[in-house]
Amino acid sequence: MCNKSDIVNRLLADCPESRQSEAAVFAPANIALCKYWGKRDSELNLPVTDSLSLSLGSLGSHCTMRIHDGPADLVQLNGTTLPPDHPFVSRLTRFLNLFRQPPGRRFHIETVNTIPTAAGFASSASGFAAIVKALDAMHGWKLPERSLSILARLGSGSASRSLWQGFVHWHAGSGTDGMDSFAEPLPEQWTDLRIGLLILNSSRKTTGSTEAMRRTVETSALYDAWPRQVATDLAAIRQAIRDRDFQALGAAAEANALAMHATMMAARPAVLYWQPESVEAIQRVWSARADGLALYFTMDAGPNLKLLYREADRTTIEQQFDGLVTANPWQEREP
Amino acid sequence: MCNKSDIVNRLLADCPESRQSEAAVFAPANIALCKYWGKRDSELNLPVTDSLSLSLGSLGSHCTMRIHDGPADLVQLNGTTLPPDHPFVSRLTRFLNLFRQPPGRRFHIETVNTIPTAAGFASSASGFAAIVKALDAMHGWKLPERSLSILARLGSGSASRSLWQGFVHWHAGSGTDGMDSFAEPLPEQWTDLRIGLLILNSSRKTTGSTEAMRRTVETSALYDAWPRQVATDLAAIRQAIRDRDFQALGAAAEANALAMHATMMAARPAVLYWQPESVEAIQRVWSARADGLALYFTMDAGPNLKLLYREADRTTIEQQFDGLVTANPWQEREP
Repeated sequence: MCNKSDIVNRLLADCPESRQSEAAVFAPANIALCKYWGKRDSELNLPVTDSLSLSLGSLGSHCTMRIHDGPADLVQLNGTTLPPDHPFVSRLTRFLNLFRQPPGRRFHIETVNTIPTAAGFASSASGFAAIVKALDAMHGWKLPERSLSILARLGSGSASRSLWQGFVHWHAGSGTDGMDSFAEPLPEQWTDLRIGLLILNSSRKTTGSTEAMRRTVETSALYDAWPRQVATDLAAIRQAIRDRDFQALGAAAEANALAMHATMMAARPAVLYWQPESVEAIQRVWSARADGLALYFTMDAGPNLKLLYREADRTTIEQQFDGLVTANPWQEREP
Repeated sequence: MCNKSDIVNRLLADCPESRQSEAAVFAPANIALCKYWGKRDSELNLPVTDSLSLSLGSLGSHCTMRIHDGPADLVQLNGTTLPPDHPFVSRLTRFLNLFRQPPGRRFHIETVNTIPTAAGFASSASGFAAIVKALDAMHGWKLPERSLSILARLGSGSASRSLWQGFVHWHAGSGTDGMDSFAEPLPEQWTDLRIGLLILNSSRKTTGSTEAMRRTVETSALYDAWPRQVATDLAAIRQAIRDRDFQALGAAAEANALAMHATMMAARPAVLYWQPESVEAIQRVWSARADGLALYFTMDAGPNLKLLYREADRTTIEQQFDGLVTANPWQEREP
């Protein structure tokens, strides 16, 4: 059995070190088109299945990291200093414990998220990816991308996919040490593809995704079928990307999301992230599609929808869905 | 391969016949606590799994049947004569074709449903059960209950469970002729148990349950796990009935309904009977339960909820859920 420290020590062995006083980085958020749902190892965040995501362009986490002189890490989120007992600070401190060389080193972390925090908008993915990029830059390790992805995964599973723009494939791997469980970007650029955040309900989720995954894996009879579902959907999505077949991509992503929510609904007790507004929005998407619009949705561990469409339909769709925020997965900076 | 005529001829062979001019009968509607979802034979309505239901007392179908002199069957539903091309008339005429002795005999059918038609309130179950009881009474066949259940099943699967009040267990059977696929009442009477209809949305369903079942069985990867789910839930429900353990009964019934909807949600295209009001009502049930009320729900192929509670909590629950109609499964007549 490995623990996180073993993995970090292994990846950082023989790294050069040429510390800078400060590093400032950005990592995009990502939305899975083929979902990550279920861990085979909860210590190392090793997933049961592969997953495939699309980045959110300029929506993500900006992180500035410095060496800090105080007795504890100093964490600022969106301009506010968080109290030391804040859940995010505890989680971040535990993660940073893996990287204190010399022992006792403290960090000053300033994170600014350009996406809404929590409510299923995956800010922990871009947040931990940015932390790992900042650690690498500040220490001058110059780690290969595969190693960065593995380190990010130790912070939050889906952070392994947040190091790049565009399509990213996270390989589940099969080893117990997780050294073969890393993400990598796909070569395909699909430059007119868009993903939009439809914020229906910004209340924080009632069940965290780690607990929801655990309960699904342990108690949902329907979860047995999930790995087969992912294998089918992942192949369909990769083929749709090669073919630039938007309808095939959208249909597979939407069906994969519904199947993920179905596995949770059959957990005991049930996990239901849907709100009344979620069902209403699903019906609006289906109705728009029945009227001929090329529009699909996906959903994560929260009540909000993410819409998939092409640039040519963006204006029409933004008019129909009030408050929709369009992201361009191939554009890191605001236009 | 058997067809419906073969089964009818087999069951009616050697029946006495002492025709009355008219028969008037009643069959209660029923709500499955462990659901029937998926057919292994769509001609004979043979189910993939067993199921277990609770009757709705005085809510069901009153049916009066007479020999009719006209050129076609005359069908009256809730006081209105239906046109010959009405879908219900076509379906009923095809069913009655199995019973025209001498050939060419026509029937005058008057059905009055005391539950809302369609919208997942199982009026076809009580409707076909009542037709079969009326045929038996009018012709003087005096068929055993098992045969009546099989004949009702040929009209509508869940009609096999609508011949009795209280708990009814429908055995899936394994034979290709369906002679071992019949329902029978359980001996247990649980006289303070109540089931309430919560009408949230009375629009007719968009996908009929036969089509929804077919699509789920053929395209939902999660359906593979459904028979195991039913086996677990059915055992838990039967044990809860023996123990008069209301919480165990409610929890198993609610989880079984959610798992059924989960299998549909993973069909392709997805089948979603939920409306925004359904999610809102689910959350209200969960919130009331978190506040200490012994209240559970089940859902069928429609947007409405059916609530499970005990007589002692009836007034409280009727006050909290506006428009709730309480049924007493052990009371056939209005009090």
